[in-house]
Amino acid sequence: MRLEELGIAAKKAEPQLIQLTTEEKNKALMAVAEGLVADAEKILTENAKDIENAKANHMAEGLVDRLLLTKERIEAMAEGLKQVAALEDPIGEVLETFERPNGLKVVQKRVPLGVIGIIYESRPNVTADAFGLCFKTGNVVILKGGKDAIHSNTSITASIRSTLKQLHISEDAVQLITDTDRETTKAFMKLNAYVDVLIPRGGAGLIRTVVENATIPVIETGTGNCHIYVDESADIDMAISIIMNAKTQRIGVCNACESLVIHENMKEKLLPKLAEQLKTKNVVMKADDAICEILPDAEKATEEDWGTEYLDYMVSMKTVKSVEEAIAHINKYNTKHSEAIITNNMDHAEKFLNEVDAAAVYVNASTRFTDGFEFGFGAEIGISTQKLHARGPMGLKALTSYKYVIYGNGQIRK
Amino acid sequence: MRLEELGIAAKKAEPQLIQLTTEEKNKALMAVAEGLVADAEKILTENAKDIENAKANHMAEGLVDRLLLTKERIEAMAEGLKQVAALEDPIGEVLETFERPNGLKVVQKRVPLGVIGIIYESRPNVTADAFGLCFKTGNVVILKGGKDAIHSNTSITASIRSTLKQLHISEDAVQLITDTDRETTKAFMKLNAYVDVLIPRGGAGLIRTVVENATIPVIETGTGNCHIYVDESADIDMAISIIMNAKTQRIGVCNACESLVIHENMKEKLLPKLAEQLKTKNVVMKADDAICEILPDAEKATEEDWGTEYLDYMVSMKTVKSVEEAIAHINKYNTKHSEAIITNNMDHAEKFLNEVDAAAVYVNASTRFTDGFEFGFGAEIGISTQKLHARGPMGLKALTSYKYVIYGNGQIRK
Repeated sequence: MRLEELGIAAKKAEPQLIQLTTEEKNKALMAVAEGLVADAEKILTENAKDIENAKANHMAEGLVDRLLLTKERIEAMAEGLKQVAALEDPIGEVLETFERPNGLKVVQKRVPLGVIGIIYESRPNVTADAFGLCFKTGNVVILKGGKDAIHSNTSITASIRSTLKQLHISEDAVQLITDTDRETTKAFMKLNAYVDVLIPRGGAGLIRTVVENATIPVIETGTGNCHIYVDESADIDMAISIIMNAKTQRIGVCNACESLVIHENMKEKLLPKLAEQLKTKNVVMKADDAICEILPDAEKATEEDWGTEYLDYMVSMKTVKSVEEAIAHINKYNTKHSEAIITNNMDHAEKFLNEVDAAAVYVNASTRFTDGFEFGFGAEIGISTQKLHARGPMGLKALTSYKYVIYGNGQIRK
Repeated sequence: MRLEELGIAAKKAEPQLIQLTTEEKNKALMAVAEGLVADAEKILTENAKDIENAKANHMAEGLVDRLLLTKERIEAMAEGLKQVAALEDPIGEVLETFERPNGLKVVQKRVPLGVIGIIYESRPNVTADAFGLCFKTGNVVILKGGKDAIHSNTSITASIRSTLKQLHISEDAVQLITDTDRETTKAFMKLNAYVDVLIPRGGAGLIRTVVENATIPVIETGTGNCHIYVDESADIDMAISIIMNAKTQRIGVCNACESLVIHENMKEKLLPKLAEQLKTKNVVMKADDAICEILPDAEKATEEDWGTEYLDYMVSMKTVKSVEEAIAHINKYNTKHSEAIITNNMDHAEKFLNEVDAAAVYVNASTRFTDGFEFGFGAEIGISTQKLHARGPMGLKALTSYKYVIYGNGQIRK
């Protein structure tokens, strides 16, 4: 019942948001940013309650850090909103226009998706971030954050809503679901009458739950079991530099490398040097027999290793006889995120780029570049690993749809 | 188990389809078309079994006609495939290309969706049609047709597969699910490991079942509760001509008009003339009190009427005091398909076009134009009523995704 009320309020706010000009939206984003900084004390007080509960519940230290707000972190949230205000507004863009023989003029125009649902974990900064991206694109947003961040999220949402109200913009442009039980979350995923699109932001478990339970269309963002294939003709130093970057620069992210595929003729030249480097970062190697023979430190990989996203100082390693075998292996085990080939053979590169099924395919570069900011989008909603709607890093345009606007002078169909 | 085998075979066929050139695909489509005509006798024999069963099961006459194949209908299926061969191939199109400050060159390229699942009713022609559209766009297709058409679908699929085999193209480019029980269909909707996108083609019940049960991303095609709003300044003759066309030219289609919204100042001028015309086609009128007062033939509308897609010689009619009220009424009851305003007031037209939430919004034209062929797309997969991926009439491009291809020379992330 409560959920339906949120849905009705969201749908009511939708037409107003569509009518806001870019200037009005940017002005509001700047005001909301200032409002958050002005409300910092209140937000920190509420955040302290969440932190206290989290510690009482023995939450892992890394998660407590994700949950923690400071004055600086609130300022960073505000700064994020100001950056979104500075981005180009995609709404209203004319994608195509054509005239039909009967004189009908058809204009395909970019419009908001409508009402977006965002389900996320206990990271209070996502509350402001998701609002900013949705608001800039004329979308109403209904937020469902992790239950451990409920006090923080409630106070951040209250601050945003209060600023919107002052500007005579419907405060229901952003609403927070405050019931944090599982039943409410599952019911939210089926609120098709009021929510146009659902975006889960978080780990593999959260995303799986949403994909399995939602009847609302979902943009699946995602997990990355990313491979680097070292081809026969690869430059060894380049290969090692790229592998070290993709594997160890940041281990807990979806575009980090999890698995190496190595042409058998490269074993002797590459492996000892590579292993030495990996050792400096204490990377555990899980390898097939051919590699274990050369690298005594390597552990034997199991079938499960090929499909595992470690998010850790760990890497699987497999030898292949050809680029074809490498492509087949990658297509079998990857999560369609980011895949790279290191080679000086341009035919092999083109084959790999064409045939590997992933959102981003690289030749001679680190997989770590799959990122909205690295791609120059100025913002990132997430990285889509599905093929419908948006694929790869999603900027503001991923939060839009289009409509056909047709101008006639009395045309009827024959 | 059987389903998983189909999935594995589909995934195996996928890389080959990606590698086919436009010329190879067109040649195959022409050959498949000729193969169907050559196999007409066999297909008709199998179709006769379906027809016999259907009649024994007392299937309604209209449905039997949909199920029936004739030599001419098989030739029309073949002609359809030849037309698809003649269309432009969207695969490989470069959508965008940009260079980053670090020298990475990023190319956004149009690619197939991968494996498409199509679930449809007992219309054997969809079997060839869906194959043609998917094959042209480099997609593998798994078909699940209605159980009453199983013999027809099996023989059509066998004909297509045999032609593909002769051309040394993987016959698993098209596969038919021959188990027609509900459990298999439901399991198919959850085959995320092998199927990238699911497209239901059929009536409201089929689509609802797919949306509610699928975990695979769905393109929802759809039902249309389409309105025509006659504004205060409308040309009366144009309004009547457009209403008659949209309501009565073909009643069983999703872009037919189901509901009229009439400015109260137009009642006297419009309604008696309109009612006279509607009477010539025996259209039943379900109207609000204000209209019933003027039109004694009209029946009183209930709340349910405003939300009903009649697909019949029946229309609901409601008066409003303003364009704003018209927009609010339409947005409350429509299915986001096609909506029209008849007006000479361009401010009202723009307001309507901007604020009505639908795939296609018209000023001074019939809603019946929402159609892939009428839009000049040369083919139609269906009309999407969701906002994700594709909206409105879907041509070949709706069966594509994109990937980012990135060329580097050793770049690593800082």
